[in-house]
Amino acid sequence: MQQPRKVRMGMVGGGQDAFIGAVHRMAANLDGNIELVCGAFSSDPAKSISSGQSLYLPAERCYANYAQMFTEEAKLPEQQRMQFVSIVTPNHLHFPIAKAALEAGFHVLSDKPATFTLQEALDLADVLKTSKQLYGLTHTYNGYPLVKQAKHLVATGVLGKITKVVVEYSQGWLANKEDEGSKQAQWRVDPKRAGVSCCMGDIGVHAANLAEYVLDANISAMCADLNAVVEGRQLDDDGTVLLRFDNGARGVLMSSQISVGEENNLRLRVYGEEGSLDWSQMEPNSLWLRTNNKSTQLIRTGVGDLCPAAQAATRTPAGHPEGYLEAFANIYQNFAIQIQAFEKGVPCSNEAFDVPGIEQAIRGMAFIENTVKFSQSELKWHDFDLSPLTISGSD
Amino acid sequence: MQQPRKVRMGMVGGGQDAFIGAVHRMAANLDGNIELVCGAFSSDPAKSISSGQSLYLPAERCYANYAQMFTEEAKLPEQQRMQFVSIVTPNHLHFPIAKAALEAGFHVLSDKPATFTLQEALDLADVLKTSKQLYGLTHTYNGYPLVKQAKHLVATGVLGKITKVVVEYSQGWLANKEDEGSKQAQWRVDPKRAGVSCCMGDIGVHAANLAEYVLDANISAMCADLNAVVEGRQLDDDGTVLLRFDNGARGVLMSSQISVGEENNLRLRVYGEEGSLDWSQMEPNSLWLRTNNKSTQLIRTGVGDLCPAAQAATRTPAGHPEGYLEAFANIYQNFAIQIQAFEKGVPCSNEAFDVPGIEQAIRGMAFIENTVKFSQSELKWHDFDLSPLTISGSD
Amino acid sequence: MQQPRKVRMGMVGGGQDAFIGAVHRMAANLDGNIELVCGAFSSDPAKSISSGQSLYLPAERCYANYAQMFTEEAKLPEQQRMQFVSIVTPNHLHFPIAKAALEAGFHVLSDKPATFTLQEALDLADVLKTSKQLYGLTHTYNGYPLVKQAKHLVATGVLGKITKVVVEYSQGWLANKEDEGSKQAQWRVDPKRAGVSCCMGDIGVHAANLAEYVLDANISAMCADLNAVVEGRQLDDDGTVLLRFDNGARGVLMSSQISVGEENNLRLRVYGEEGSLDWSQMEPNSLWLRTNNKSTQLIRTGVGDLCPAAQAATRTPAGHPEGYLEAFANIYQNFAIQIQAFEKGVPCSNEAFDVPGIEQAIRGMAFIENTVKFSQSELKWHDFDLSPLTISGSD
Amino acid sequence: MQQPRKVRMGMVGGGQDAFIGAVHRMAANLDGNIELVCGAFSSDPAKSISSGQSLYLPAERCYANYAQMFTEEAKLPEQQRMQFVSIVTPNHLHFPIAKAALEAGFHVLSDKPATFTLQEALDLADVLKTSKQLYGLTHTYNGYPLVKQAKHLVATGVLGKITKVVVEYSQGWLANKEDEGSKQAQWRVDPKRAGVSCCMGDIGVHAANLAEYVLDANISAMCADLNAVVEGRQLDDDGTVLLRFDNGARGVLMSSQISVGEENNLRLRVYGEEGSLDWSQMEPNSLWLRTNNKSTQLIRTGVGDLCPAAQAATRTPAGHPEGYLEAFANIYQNFAIQIQAFEKGVPCSNEAFDVPGIEQAIRGMAFIENTVKFSQSELKWHDFDLSPLTISGSD
Repeated sequence: MQQPRKVRMGMVGGGQDAFIGAVHRMAANLDGNIELVCGAFSSDPAKSISSGQSLYLPAERCYANYAQMFTEEAKLPEQQRMQFVSIVTPNHLHFPIAKAALEAGFHVLSDKPATFTLQEALDLADVLKTSKQLYGLTHTYNGYPLVKQAKHLVATGVLGKITKVVVEYSQGWLANKEDEGSKQAQWRVDPKRAGVSCCMGDIGVHAANLAEYVLDANISAMCADLNAVVEGRQLDDDGTVLLRFDNGARGVLMSSQISVGEENNLRLRVYGEEGSLDWSQMEPNSLWLRTNNKSTQLIRTGVGDLCPAAQAATRTPAGHPEGYLEAFANIYQNFAIQIQAFEKGVPCSNEAFDVPGIEQAIRGMAFIENTVKFSQSELKWHDFDLSPLTISGSD
Repeated sequence: MQQPRKVRMGMVGGGQDAFIGAVHRMAANLDGNIELVCGAFSSDPAKSISSGQSLYLPAERCYANYAQMFTEEAKLPEQQRMQFVSIVTPNHLHFPIAKAALEAGFHVLSDKPATFTLQEALDLADVLKTSKQLYGLTHTYNGYPLVKQAKHLVATGVLGKITKVVVEYSQGWLANKEDEGSKQAQWRVDPKRAGVSCCMGDIGVHAANLAEYVLDANISAMCADLNAVVEGRQLDDDGTVLLRFDNGARGVLMSSQISVGEENNLRLRVYGEEGSLDWSQMEPNSLWLRTNNKSTQLIRTGVGDLCPAAQAATRTPAGHPEGYLEAFANIYQNFAIQIQAFEKGVPCSNEAFDVPGIEQAIRGMAFIENTVKFSQSELKWHDFDLSPLTISGSD
Repeated sequence: MQQPRKVRMGMVGGGQDAFIGAVHRMAANLDGNIELVCGAFSSDPAKSISSGQSLYLPAERCYANYAQMFTEEAKLPEQQRMQFVSIVTPNHLHFPIAKAALEAGFHVLSDKPATFTLQEALDLADVLKTSKQLYGLTHTYNGYPLVKQAKHLVATGVLGKITKVVVEYSQGWLANKEDEGSKQAQWRVDPKRAGVSCCMGDIGVHAANLAEYVLDANISAMCADLNAVVEGRQLDDDGTVLLRFDNGARGVLMSSQISVGEENNLRLRVYGEEGSLDWSQMEPNSLWLRTNNKSTQLIRTGVGDLCPAAQAATRTPAGHPEGYLEAFANIYQNFAIQIQAFEKGVPCSNEAFDVPGIEQAIRGMAFIENTVKFSQSELKWHDFDLSPLTISGSD
Repeated sequence: MQQPRKVRMGMVGGGQDAFIGAVHRMAANLDGNIELVCGAFSSDPAKSISSGQSLYLPAERCYANYAQMFTEEAKLPEQQRMQFVSIVTPNHLHFPIAKAALEAGFHVLSDKPATFTLQEALDLADVLKTSKQLYGLTHTYNGYPLVKQAKHLVATGVLGKITKVVVEYSQGWLANKEDEGSKQAQWRVDPKRAGVSCCMGDIGVHAANLAEYVLDANISAMCADLNAVVEGRQLDDDGTVLLRFDNGARGVLMSSQISVGEENNLRLRVYGEEGSLDWSQMEPNSLWLRTNNKSTQLIRTGVGDLCPAAQAATRTPAGHPEGYLEAFANIYQNFAIQIQAFEKGVPCSNEAFDVPGIEQAIRGMAFIENTVKFSQSELKWHDFDLSPLTISGSD
């Protein structure tokens, strides 16, 4: 037996005090087959090194910036250098880093939203066509076992023809002006770092992705109403989007960061002619299957005959709750497996490995720009549009 | 002590097989102070008599029709004749019966929606100005103790300035063509008996009323999207309405009768700058009060210092669940108390007795007609409009 | 068609301020086929009359005491006089009133526990053998539709052989000495009025009855540990009883009135070799059916094919919550139907009409006395014993 | 800054197909500061090596047995050799491995129950007195943030004087004879590998530990009733234990592995004179604080001012569910921190680092042996006894 080797990861962003970087690292750590080997953790070189050292990295692999990291890592022997980079910076840096990484020959696993603008996502798709490297996008919530089971039940027709989708993602942490003090809040409400949207870009896009993932259908038209509820805020912090899907289903997407008291309330309901599903991220190990004339079924992680994807995404027996970090780790696992397959020369579509990729990146950015654009329109319905937003005047 | 006397009720509609008539009677019975003394239970005279007799009424007070009932009852001695009429027919008969009753000198407690059209509701308001009799509308869900507590918490500023409302009323029982077989379904999907709307008229209007009741604010503008999901259906069976309230709050109202697996899922969430409320009709003895930085409070019927209106609407100690019939009975109780006060010469606004009345009747009919009208518009937002729908051509 | 007549009820106890009397009246009122015609509501004659008048009774049928009531009512024409008496006094009066009523030719529906002592219950059984009148006992919780469904699922073998029962009835309202101020509390902690037990007599007996009812099996042995947690209390306010049933099942019964924060937490779990049931009184419209390798089934009132007894006990469609008063009304309904059948000469076992009767009365009193007796023993297990407690010296 | 170094772990047991070994590794991995450096994963040397290699270990550090591992690792330079050993074998091997490890100079983190017999636990305590190494025991459920918060609320008097504890640990996976097929089941029902108890040894001991941990009080007396519900089973698979604590509180402990449909239902309720707590492992991010006259408080992981121990045990913001693996990782984290402190020469009681240790090991083994012994007694109550079970004849 040849000695198996861990998949080697570098990270850009995620220095001390960063929230999402730590989450990515725990997700990468959990299953013991991914190794953090280098990082450019901060734009401040000293901070990057101290961050890296606290992560047990040698100083020589804690880089001052991502450009340097890609250059230096590329010089290392193949068995040592990082194989993929995890991008956990604020939104406006996702694209240049991803592009540079791909061009330097590294795979990319990026936090969402994929880029700053739809145009960048389209450009990134072009880069990918040339580079042949792999690209994954951490739409975390797809990683939950029962989300995969929901997708399976829809696909196998258990619900009948899908008629309606209600997806909601509500938080309350940006409900007041003074909530903007935290580092997490600051960049999200700043158009220069977050992009054209706060709420839709940060969490609404997760909700849209989740609905499309479970339905295996695309949003085809939207009626959007975004609000900046907190006075003086430049970007939306709340909004509702009516949806039409290309399979004929209707939908409602609600997203909010000003819904006081809501923690991280992502919930998806899918109604078909014969049954409906109900899943909530905050109780992720329960999936409700309802019909009109029979008992409700409570499907539980680890109980009974779940689909293979759900089973593969589960680590412990029934009743041992798994949560957000495990879901996140499932994205990392699938991407690591995809990399290993790729390096053995296996053809590697993201879909085959259940990893959100460039298609979701583009659709996500289109969703964000579309909701902003359509919200400004006096007309109700607009077709979902994959052409980039033309920024007018002062906007 | 002078012998107290029960309040005497007549009923129009509600013969054998009718659902809502039996509910009204149980609500009237519960507290033992309302007596059913007569009825015109069916348009078939024999059925009216047999229905009445099975309700322990003497044959001579089981009338062939409401006109006869009002004429004959008016001839009885004051201490015997009915004091108010409960109207539990299909929608298209509400107005003529209510008008005739008021003109014959009887108080009216009507099932909702108040009338067949907004114009009728406005006409009814004119009748009321002349008649001086009392008029109540059974918006049942206002009758729950914790709905009253929610209204109290909003009114006393516990939530701070209200920013957002999400109200949902979902059912699944009309999800398929074949569900239309029941008597209950037949008239609801028939424009001739239900009016311009099925879903919004049957249940959406309850959701709108609940939101306005708890907020003590009016809907001022709407963006409506109604659907007839089941093929061939003439009226809406599903819809979403975006809301703006005259106090500045935004809102989303979702209502559906095709959401398979939903029983009678009426839920109201109210978000303010400092707290939020969450109440579900299917678990009516729990009201959730959430804030951003403290433990969630679960307010329970019968526990602690609830507002007087909530306490008065509760019959048993904490942990003894009360439900729909008790909420319905609370509407009846308040109306009975209002009648007793009226008959003692006390000035009697519906608001003072917490009984939904003609104002809610008009706003409800406007809501229904508005949602239908606005749904047909290509424009997103329309002001809430109290002028009757002009029915065009084939509609 | 002969004019149907309501069943005529008299009441002993339940004057102003009494809790359970009002509950019994609402339960009797709900369905409109039982009429309160007379009462001896208080041992204070003036209070009895004023209580009766506030209940719309004529003064001449508000009696000064139960003896007078039985004598006077017996003189009335058959079509006018009461048919049954509802007994809602403190425990120590249940037996003499029931005995007198039966001997005077009236049916009896008694609040629980049936009597003050097991000996009285045995004596009452003797009275019943002679009198031929009907006797019912308001073990309210049997009246819930999903309790009947649970009984049905056990009886039809859905759970397989029953192995274990966990039944709990927890309240917190007597947790402190100062809670004894209320009228409700005072007599319950007073051995002269409550009997040998507070907690087991007041609520533990409900739990035992519920388990026996659903299992259709009898407790055959017990290990009891009762506590008087609040200092200085003469009777138990908390206790646990290990159970063996005559069908081989084991069980645990927990009952408490000092469990701070518990409202009226009656919960029954039944485990069989192939499935288990879980029902909670505070969410009575849900019944959980679990197995080891399949999705949990949530059975809901009004949804799907419930057993006839469950359907008959339900008044509204799914999603319209019914609760405690409706369950209570179901006991009254069944008893009223039993009376009507009896008066038509139909043979009338309580079991056939699903009305708890003298057998439950005896077993309940034996449960109470047994738990007290066994708790004082140093030995663990004792056979369930139908012989009355021999009160020794200082007890 | 000196380069920080990960804490180095070896593992005994946990080869391919083992459940709990994989769980321990994920727990150790999660935070990225513990490194698996060696293992004796199986008593089959080839399997040990192949297991180790699949875990990315070099063959030379995959040992054929634990004795070899301790010998060889001790020869390695201090900076390379393992610092602690994680013991994840069946119960009967815990003691000899732990003893050998301690004597070879390695710290020990052991799965529970600590040993095969109470005598071994007492012997282990003797070994520890000599060795000075650290010893931790993975009572996982102590690792949950809200368990720590519960302990804090009890300690700070929020509940008042504690009066009652109800702790339950129910599973259904051993409900039938045929369930014994799995490797997990086989050794648990085998007295040679599991010890004197199946259910109490496997999960009841967790429940007892959880209660003592949260109360910071010891069980002082018990009345035990253990059952072997499945025919022919040699060890208990179900049982109830009545408890008295040395702080005066009473308690009930229910544990079962034959409760069909129960997944991993560990629930703790603590009642005090002024408030009560309710926590369920299957919804671990919610802790209910109830009182008699105020709204229930729902305390949530990550919301508001939790105690420092709860905060330190939480990795993500509110609403991002954390579960079993995170709780398990918290035990590993605390032990790793304890090791680091120890190696810096800081005095290191387990209590100071919130790591269950030898005291819990002894009390747990005493709990197991006591419940078995007391269950066989005809007497109800017995004092909790720290002297080892004298195995008599046929037992």
